[in-house]
Amino acid sequence: MSGKGVKRASPGAEEEKNPLGDVDITDEDAVKLQELQKCYHRVELAVERQAAEKMQPVYEKRRPVVKAIQKFWPVALMNHEMFAIHCQHNLDQVALAYLEDLWVVRNPKEFRAFTIEFHFKENPFFSNTVLKKEYKYVQSEGAKQGEPDENGITDAMFEFSWERDVEPQACKIDWKDDAHNLTKLYPRVVDDADDEMPSDGGSFFNYFGFADDPFDLGVNVAHDVYPEAIEYFLGEKSGAEVDSEDEEDEEDDDEEDAEIDLEKPRVKKRKV
Amino acid sequence: MSGKGVKRASPGAEEEKNPLGDVDITDEDAVKLQELQKCYHRVELAVERQAAEKMQPVYEKRRPVVKAIQKFWPVALMNHEMFAIHCQHNLDQVALAYLEDLWVVRNPKEFRAFTIEFHFKENPFFSNTVLKKEYKYVQSEGAKQGEPDENGITDAMFEFSWERDVEPQACKIDWKDDAHNLTKLYPRVVDDADDEMPSDGGSFFNYFGFADDPFDLGVNVAHDVYPEAIEYFLGEKSGAEVDSEDEEDEEDDDEEDAEIDLEKPRVKKRKV
Repeated sequence: MSGKGVKRASPGAEEEKNPLGDVDITDEDAVKLQELQKCYHRVELAVERQAAEKMQPVYEKRRPVVKAIQKFWPVALMNHEMFAIHCQHNLDQVALAYLEDLWVVRNPKEFRAFTIEFHFKENPFFSNTVLKKEYKYVQSEGAKQGEPDENGITDAMFEFSWERDVEPQACKIDWKDDAHNLTKLYPRVVDDADDEMPSDGGSFFNYFGFADDPFDLGVNVAHDVYPEAIEYFLGEKSGAEVDSEDEEDEEDDDEEDAEIDLEKPRVKKRKV
Repeated sequence: MSGKGVKRASPGAEEEKNPLGDVDITDEDAVKLQELQKCYHRVELAVERQAAEKMQPVYEKRRPVVKAIQKFWPVALMNHEMFAIHCQHNLDQVALAYLEDLWVVRNPKEFRAFTIEFHFKENPFFSNTVLKKEYKYVQSEGAKQGEPDENGITDAMFEFSWERDVEPQACKIDWKDDAHNLTKLYPRVVDDADDEMPSDGGSFFNYFGFADDPFDLGVNVAHDVYPEAIEYFLGEKSGAEVDSEDEEDEEDDDEEDAEIDLEKPRVKKRKV
């Protein structure tokens, strides 16, 4: 590395030419900045946890209202682009249409781990009334819990890693017969045992049958669809990453889209 | 609009074909959903306000540490792409190099309105020690304050609109002489009086001389650079809208970038 642009505190002609070109910091300052950043991220985490707690009563209030609306959850889920990709089989959607309630339970020890409960009405496919997908919090060995700080954040919470500390669980589906066994009709296909991603995900219901969640459906459902389920149901959100400007354009085009995009569930108001 | 796909609750062959094609909701349900959404957004706002409060001690802790680091704030600001675009004149950067402290004061009544204080060291350009840019909260006439709800959110807060309720203020700069008067040397150029955007913003310091803030510099500074100033100072953030994957790539390329991108301030560690 050349010394070009490296400066000590001596303002002058060179300073005028490139006043902010290079800046040196001492190791001591670097450590101080690191400590401040840690402090910042701990507060950020505390805010996130508090937000989850504060939202809970809102979800409880929402639960019976949306449960009473025909196909609220199936439509909300199918309006999420990522989810829709993994629920493309017609029979998947027929079965999903019996979903009448979706509920997320957070782990009391680690709020970022959760279980999604899919509550189904009586249906021709399976006899379970609830299909649960648990993202189990498995605290890594030797991880110190630590004393909670003034914001209630422990070291274990601060060090939490979704990839390392969460193990998704399987849930057995009691299929009524082979003709309705969607995971048998549309199995998950893995070409290469070393490959983490299936070449064909098959039926959406493989999501329950297998422990792993290679397409991150759980995170998409719990983080995107669940909090803003009403927007998804109404088609105001799609889960696609668009900047706000595009989103505005999209809204203007709503009428047009409705004529073209026949795959996407639509909601119409009906006079009673 | 054709009746195609409109269904009443009568499952059958058509249902199987397009189980989630169209869904009707009653006006009554639509109103209920609207109420739930309002409830959701009020809690979201309460969380946002609480986050701002909880961050305050972190900023107070950070303030003296970063003030002691040579050119911390000028470098952090210049590493924000949008800010850098509006501070391109060499003399702007020479003057900005005297900025030793940046502080954001939130309006106690409406936390989303704020004043940014730019604290400068003694310098050859102007005699002010602080240049303030106030985004003044002007509650719209007839707006009801309303009783705060259980989360401390009033109707006025819920109805707040940055465009409608905030009026940026000018701040007079006491230039030492014409040779150092940057706003005179590089004036803001407006081609058409009807045009809201200047064709040339001129010196960055026009940001203080004019009341309006056509390039939204204040929001960029207060919302992006200020909270994550350390990341900006270290060049870990750029303010450019990139998705997380791109960001990872960028980190890998850091070494390379350093050789090419000479305009961007860089920070090096120095042994003491």
